[in-house]
Amino acid sequence: MIKANARGVSGPTEKFEPITVERRDLDSRDVLIEIKYAGICHSDIHCAHSEWKEETYPVIPGHEIAGIVMETGSDVKKYKSGDRVGVGCMVDSCGECENCKKGEEQFCLKGATMTYADVDKYGDHTYGGYSTHIVVPEDFVLHIPEGIELDVAAPLLCAGITTYSPLNRWGAGPGKKVAVVGLGGLGHMGVKIANAMGAEVTVLSQTLNKKEDGLRLGADHYYATSDASTFETLAGTFDLIINTVSAKIDVDAFLSLLTVDGALVNVGAPSEPLSLNVFSLLGGRRSFAGSMIGGIPETQKMLDFCAEHGIGSEIEVISADQIDEAYERVMASDVRYRFVIDAGTIGAE
Amino acid sequence: MIKANARGVSGPTEKFEPITVERRDLDSRDVLIEIKYAGICHSDIHCAHSEWKEETYPVIPGHEIAGIVMETGSDVKKYKSGDRVGVGCMVDSCGECENCKKGEEQFCLKGATMTYADVDKYGDHTYGGYSTHIVVPEDFVLHIPEGIELDVAAPLLCAGITTYSPLNRWGAGPGKKVAVVGLGGLGHMGVKIANAMGAEVTVLSQTLNKKEDGLRLGADHYYATSDASTFETLAGTFDLIINTVSAKIDVDAFLSLLTVDGALVNVGAPSEPLSLNVFSLLGGRRSFAGSMIGGIPETQKMLDFCAEHGIGSEIEVISADQIDEAYERVMASDVRYRFVIDAGTIGAE
Repeated sequence: MIKANARGVSGPTEKFEPITVERRDLDSRDVLIEIKYAGICHSDIHCAHSEWKEETYPVIPGHEIAGIVMETGSDVKKYKSGDRVGVGCMVDSCGECENCKKGEEQFCLKGATMTYADVDKYGDHTYGGYSTHIVVPEDFVLHIPEGIELDVAAPLLCAGITTYSPLNRWGAGPGKKVAVVGLGGLGHMGVKIANAMGAEVTVLSQTLNKKEDGLRLGADHYYATSDASTFETLAGTFDLIINTVSAKIDVDAFLSLLTVDGALVNVGAPSEPLSLNVFSLLGGRRSFAGSMIGGIPETQKMLDFCAEHGIGSEIEVISADQIDEAYERVMASDVRYRFVIDAGTIGAE
Repeated sequence: MIKANARGVSGPTEKFEPITVERRDLDSRDVLIEIKYAGICHSDIHCAHSEWKEETYPVIPGHEIAGIVMETGSDVKKYKSGDRVGVGCMVDSCGECENCKKGEEQFCLKGATMTYADVDKYGDHTYGGYSTHIVVPEDFVLHIPEGIELDVAAPLLCAGITTYSPLNRWGAGPGKKVAVVGLGGLGHMGVKIANAMGAEVTVLSQTLNKKEDGLRLGADHYYATSDASTFETLAGTFDLIINTVSAKIDVDAFLSLLTVDGALVNVGAPSEPLSLNVFSLLGGRRSFAGSMIGGIPETQKMLDFCAEHGIGSEIEVISADQIDEAYERVMASDVRYRFVIDAGTIGAE
């Protein structure tokens, strides 16, 4: 067993505290990673607080992991010590179902193993990236290309792929008008990536507070959704809208902004059901869709794309002692745009 | 002015009665059609009864029209007297917007002119196909190929294109699993067309009452949605589900039947909003979409496809005096599968 230091919570209302976790000895295809940075994703908060389901504690979140390979199993082909690598939301899958074979491990028919708060094939609970080390099968490890610093790369492993995948799949590119709803951790990545893909990008945010940022990050236009005239002005405009907001939205209002064959794709996951009028779909052959991270090959493609275009996340690096405070600030939308934990500060128990 | 006999209603609760309507004198690009058959679509009933909005009376429904060209305007190029032709849901559009230019006149940005209960560019109310004659611009007239009788062709102009268009657009064909929800006027066309496209077709109907019919019409499988085990058995099965039912459905339950990247496409138009859980979309990158008839080029393509595959509607021909009774039976789902009015029985006022 490999002992790693970590930060976790022992219950839904507890604060983060130092914990020692045991990482398994390397299997022949495992990679031991020294974690350098771990991003804080809103999902971490939902999970730490048992907001989606009742979790088994301790919970050690973190699925935006960037680090350096320390050791590799005997049969590992893709990585060697010293490689710059990342780990995202998944650390394993069956590898045999049709979705895994297509490289869509996130839709593994047997259920992919999530990086934290899940149970792996050994029957062990998984503990995430708020830690000094992690052991992951090489097929779930990504190369972080030279040209992206590890700290700004970490959030790409979730926020990056979550927005890249639908932009890629729904054809964002030159001549396409793309809107990104919400300029937060996901939204700011969506703006950067859609812009790099060559699309004309509009931010739809509740207020104009972050307008300057939005334009700097690559948006061509910026509108406030609290202003009812926005929905008149932009009616029938967009080929694709990526909704990064988890709060309940007026789906019909956003569908009305789509052109014929346009798609509204949710990457946020509101806990309440949403209601919509089917006429909003019929009157333009529109779609309301969802997208969830991406498969491993697409995640690598995203990292390569980001390196090529000089895209990283906008981050605020914090020490491990600031996680509770950072959670408060994420919940208050007071972060531009992603907190990243410096794993060097996690220390011993 | 050309006098035509028709059947219409003078109010939302009135019965059908003989009416004389004036069809305009032919403009240079107009076609005068002697109507032979007119299908009864559920939309006709919604409109006659002012169920979608308050209509201007009299309402003369009918947008599944098959007949013979009697006369053509001086500049008409595509049709000559004696041609077998059809008219569907639209009789005009602006012709200049991007959607019209793409042959998607149903999404005309200025609003297409509907065949009945609308106002045309002359400022006249439009009266539909429950009539002996109609005058329509040639660009909104379709060729009915030899090989389809006019009576079974009439319902193709709405029920046919409404199901053909999404099947075509979402790629129904060999290797694809397609489900059709509801085996009524639309559904039975969906089954025939999806089968002819080479897809593996499943009917999802409330009961197994029409199972024998469904299999005869081309379905490979037939399941009752009133049986909860259907949703377990078929979880994750379909690439495409065409929902022809206008009643409120459990959207999440149907989304769970889709494979990764699958689409649930509504062609029915429930008057109440539908509710869905976004997780149903995220967990397989699924789409909930809508589709509304089709453009004129696609409608012609559909008619040619149906002629090539020997596809017509399953019909019950009625006389004009039976329209009220037919409406009752449509509302009670007591028709296999489309009523078609023999326009020869409309007679004089």
